[in-house]
Amino acid sequence: MCVPGCQQAVQHALSRRGFFTGAATAAFAATAVAPEPAQAQTRQFGRAVDLTHTMSPDFPTFLGEPGIAMEKRFDLKRDGYNLHWWRLNEHAGTHLDPPIHFSEAGMTADMIPADMLVVPLAVVDVVAKAAANPDYQLSRDDVVAWEGRHGRLPANCCVAMHAGWGQRASDPARFTGRDAAGVLHFPGFSGEATDWLLKERRVAGLAVDTMSLDHGPSKDFKTHVLWLSAGRWGLESVANLDQVPAVGATLVVGLAKVKGATGGPVRLFALV
Amino acid sequence: MCVPGCQQAVQHALSRRGFFTGAATAAFAATAVAPEPAQAQTRQFGRAVDLTHTMSPDFPTFLGEPGIAMEKRFDLKRDGYNLHWWRLNEHAGTHLDPPIHFSEAGMTADMIPADMLVVPLAVVDVVAKAAANPDYQLSRDDVVAWEGRHGRLPANCCVAMHAGWGQRASDPARFTGRDAAGVLHFPGFSGEATDWLLKERRVAGLAVDTMSLDHGPSKDFKTHVLWLSAGRWGLESVANLDQVPAVGATLVVGLAKVKGATGGPVRLFALV
Repeated sequence: MCVPGCQQAVQHALSRRGFFTGAATAAFAATAVAPEPAQAQTRQFGRAVDLTHTMSPDFPTFLGEPGIAMEKRFDLKRDGYNLHWWRLNEHAGTHLDPPIHFSEAGMTADMIPADMLVVPLAVVDVVAKAAANPDYQLSRDDVVAWEGRHGRLPANCCVAMHAGWGQRASDPARFTGRDAAGVLHFPGFSGEATDWLLKERRVAGLAVDTMSLDHGPSKDFKTHVLWLSAGRWGLESVANLDQVPAVGATLVVGLAKVKGATGGPVRLFALV
Repeated sequence: MCVPGCQQAVQHALSRRGFFTGAATAAFAATAVAPEPAQAQTRQFGRAVDLTHTMSPDFPTFLGEPGIAMEKRFDLKRDGYNLHWWRLNEHAGTHLDPPIHFSEAGMTADMIPADMLVVPLAVVDVVAKAAANPDYQLSRDDVVAWEGRHGRLPANCCVAMHAGWGQRASDPARFTGRDAAGVLHFPGFSGEATDWLLKERRVAGLAVDTMSLDHGPSKDFKTHVLWLSAGRWGLESVANLDQVPAVGATLVVGLAKVKGATGGPVRLFALV
């Protein structure tokens, strides 16, 4: 998601694509190609944890405009049944950014295959660092430290940043961190960590419990540009990351399957 | 979903609530209470099968009006990123009917808990019968025959009718079966089977690969009324039921979590 002025910054960042090297460049050149999925292996679970916030007109959004409006077209007493139509921003609430959101030829939401939407979940806890610095950027060192404790990131996984922001979603001021100058303040992935994950690991998607893959003050949206342009997806405003283990869960991304969509609401379950 | 004139029929059916007896009545009296979930038990899977049709303005709908319209508000070249707003009918494409769709006080979509959305899947094949009679209604005997082959329906399961209609979704005339008089023709659950499932088994939801839980010519929408009023959910326009086993899969219902919704798009995965 972008704030006003973002477009210039993004175009500037896109113009520096030559900076990207190695695997990231190769991946970028094939934006419509999914990263090679993991070999099928039996997975187990006992229960499902809901990682989805409830969407409503009150849910915080980037530009401040409500992300959904509902019109009741049919009413039980009058018509025999209840039915709404929605006006919905593809990028509001707990939602997914597909490659096309920040690329010209990347996959639209409906093109992402099932084996990129049912994936191992790795949760990197930066709660303490984010509490000390709301502009914190998850670093390569955070991921390396995670691997030191839990082993190498599983192939085709989702790497989730748990910053402790999920509990703030009911309070737009604390969730967005919008200051007097209109600048947002919340944690995100650093460009350095994103670049490293693209080059050195096989990761299907990133997830954050904040509003954006990039931290609040970002002007160049480097993680969006790098990650989505490379054919990967991102999840924003994820809930309940405090209720899942650092490793071992399977994430099911229940992404609305709409032709040509540049995003869409998701129902997220962690199978644990 | 209702066609014009449905409201009178539904109100008539609702006025006959006294007809319902035993467990169905008890369940009806507690429309906001979920059926008792199965005890947690370890489940296994190796891969995910996508049971979702791609939604677009061309997808067949009950009233013929496109179920979605998309407006591109932001464009990559102009704004730095791509983003649409949608106008979406809650009951179009592969979607879920929650209890509130046909009741005054039943659960809205956001209230259905995770343990009612990740459930065992039982697929009842009526393809041959539906090919011979497009108005076929899945009967209690069909379910009893299924149990004879596969054992008792698992607790808290979804019972899916596989009528072979999934392949018709790209052809609105064949999917809806609309005749010269405007009457629809496709298979659904019979009221008798629905009543029996409510009274005799513990089932979380019904699913159909056609447009409606009730068969096309229905005027009283008996299955909708019985089933949703009893606090259960229904899935309509499900895809790819020919690709999953009759028993043993786990269905994950990725239902958009929108406050107060009387329905909503779903991403369905069968974990097999």
